[in-house]
Amino acid sequence: MEALKESDVKIALVGVEDQIRKELDPYTYDSDRIEVIHTPDVVGMDDPATVTIRKKRNSSISVGVNLLKGEGYSAFISAGNTGAVVAASTIYLGMIPGVERPAIGIVIPTLKSFAFLMDAGANTGPKPAHLLQWAVMADVYVREVLGVADPEIGLLNIGEEETKGTEFIRETHGMMTERLKNFIGNVEASDVFRGKCDCIICDGFLGNVVLKVSESLTENAGALIKREIKKSPVAMLGALLLKPRLKRIRRLADYSEYGGAPLLGVNGIVMICHGRSSVKAIKNAIRAARTEIEHQIIRKMKVEIEK
Amino acid sequence: MEALKESDVKIALVGVEDQIRKELDPYTYDSDRIEVIHTPDVVGMDDPATVTIRKKRNSSISVGVNLLKGEGYSAFISAGNTGAVVAASTIYLGMIPGVERPAIGIVIPTLKSFAFLMDAGANTGPKPAHLLQWAVMADVYVREVLGVADPEIGLLNIGEEETKGTEFIRETHGMMTERLKNFIGNVEASDVFRGKCDCIICDGFLGNVVLKVSESLTENAGALIKREIKKSPVAMLGALLLKPRLKRIRRLADYSEYGGAPLLGVNGIVMICHGRSSVKAIKNAIRAARTEIEHQIIRKMKVEIEK
Repeated sequence: MEALKESDVKIALVGVEDQIRKELDPYTYDSDRIEVIHTPDVVGMDDPATVTIRKKRNSSISVGVNLLKGEGYSAFISAGNTGAVVAASTIYLGMIPGVERPAIGIVIPTLKSFAFLMDAGANTGPKPAHLLQWAVMADVYVREVLGVADPEIGLLNIGEEETKGTEFIRETHGMMTERLKNFIGNVEASDVFRGKCDCIICDGFLGNVVLKVSESLTENAGALIKREIKKSPVAMLGALLLKPRLKRIRRLADYSEYGGAPLLGVNGIVMICHGRSSVKAIKNAIRAARTEIEHQIIRKMKVEIEK
Repeated sequence: MEALKESDVKIALVGVEDQIRKELDPYTYDSDRIEVIHTPDVVGMDDPATVTIRKKRNSSISVGVNLLKGEGYSAFISAGNTGAVVAASTIYLGMIPGVERPAIGIVIPTLKSFAFLMDAGANTGPKPAHLLQWAVMADVYVREVLGVADPEIGLLNIGEEETKGTEFIRETHGMMTERLKNFIGNVEASDVFRGKCDCIICDGFLGNVVLKVSESLTENAGALIKREIKKSPVAMLGALLLKPRLKRIRRLADYSEYGGAPLLGVNGIVMICHGRSSVKAIKNAIRAARTEIEHQIIRKMKVEIEK
């Protein structure tokens, strides 16, 4: 409903029809702009990706991704099982020529503004060439969708010197130095939130850990602060006065503000959202998907990958 | 000086004598309990470890570590170049039989109390057997030095199921399941700060990233909060009222409260401190080293590793 107000987007809601209708019921909307597509199969959050592909062909994920292969549907957005979305997108849409594996990019807030980190968890054991391919795609995404004119790209490592880290990292560093004009070299995890560069490339295991540590730390810091504040009435008053400002901080630290996480590398626009996405997060994911369509990022990524 | 007050410890200060004397000058102390050992070579924070070993044999790190091989010195503490301390300790002290590589353990604050994470950065490309050896030593350390009666040990992974993660992680999981009685399986990065277990084992690349992300996030959150608060006088008053409680939070999030990080696996007690350690951090590192000595952890680790 929020997205309909914001632009002239048309939305197909794919899932168990009864449940969707029940959610839609309280609203009045232009019925030409909302379509409901019934899919009886439901993919659980813990279902292995293979189950989705082989046994749940009538799920929102399988059917939704397949819609992109026909006419009239330009982007697929899901807040469901990430592994299943990655697998279904890879199998049904295929890859952009020259890209071997898809990766998930996330926008994270930094002291300066934000940074785009990729891969956030689609791949646990990639090769150096995969990271180079992701860097080329991330560059396009940050320019076109996030509007950074000349993004700087860094490789996540445990030291800045090019001799640091594993053999895997050193090899990736060499390939990026040769191929990427805007590669600034290794960046440390402590640089991520300082906003040292616009794009941070790493394998999905590491990216997932960075994401989870920061989410968890923000959450738990909040819980700790509340616990401490409740111990003192003076502190409670202080917190009350601070509240409007702290809300702004929280918003800065809230990933959902930036909408979904694009799955780049597959031959279509796919956006993955957190299972606990707010209304705003979904609306922002729809907006980001629209920008991807308008800026023709699939075509542009193909051009850059071919170079 | 603080450590001298706290216990009957004797301290040898190893380094450039003039500089040490200058720092000691303002204090009155029992000169029998402070010894100064002059070492003219200085290891820079960016010197490769090999330089320390081959060319700077008269540095505080080389000389200090070697003191442990003689009589009368029971622990070495350094806030210098970590790589150099790890290399010098490994080469001069040798390893505990059955341990192939040393690892750095750090105490991190959690919602419940704290957790011990190892390796925090000594090894970037370990084998599953190394992680198992670290787990056995971490178990001893947490029991003896941190006083946790029956510590639970987790393996850092990107999912809880034993099929998750890389081949490396799955193999490590299998070895730990077989060998460790108190192994609770995989833990996710988001569990770390929730205090799901007492010991978290991971490779040094990952451990270092967890450490740096959390340090950096805490620092930058502080900077962000200050920036926001300064925008409103009401918020500034609120912050003033909150200050005593926020200080407690900050202390909870301050790694230095727990003193240094033990280097486990070498045949001697070595403690590594942050280059920016406070007085309190160094004092606490000395206290932790004393506890290691009193609880004979080297002997106990040898026993456990041999089992």
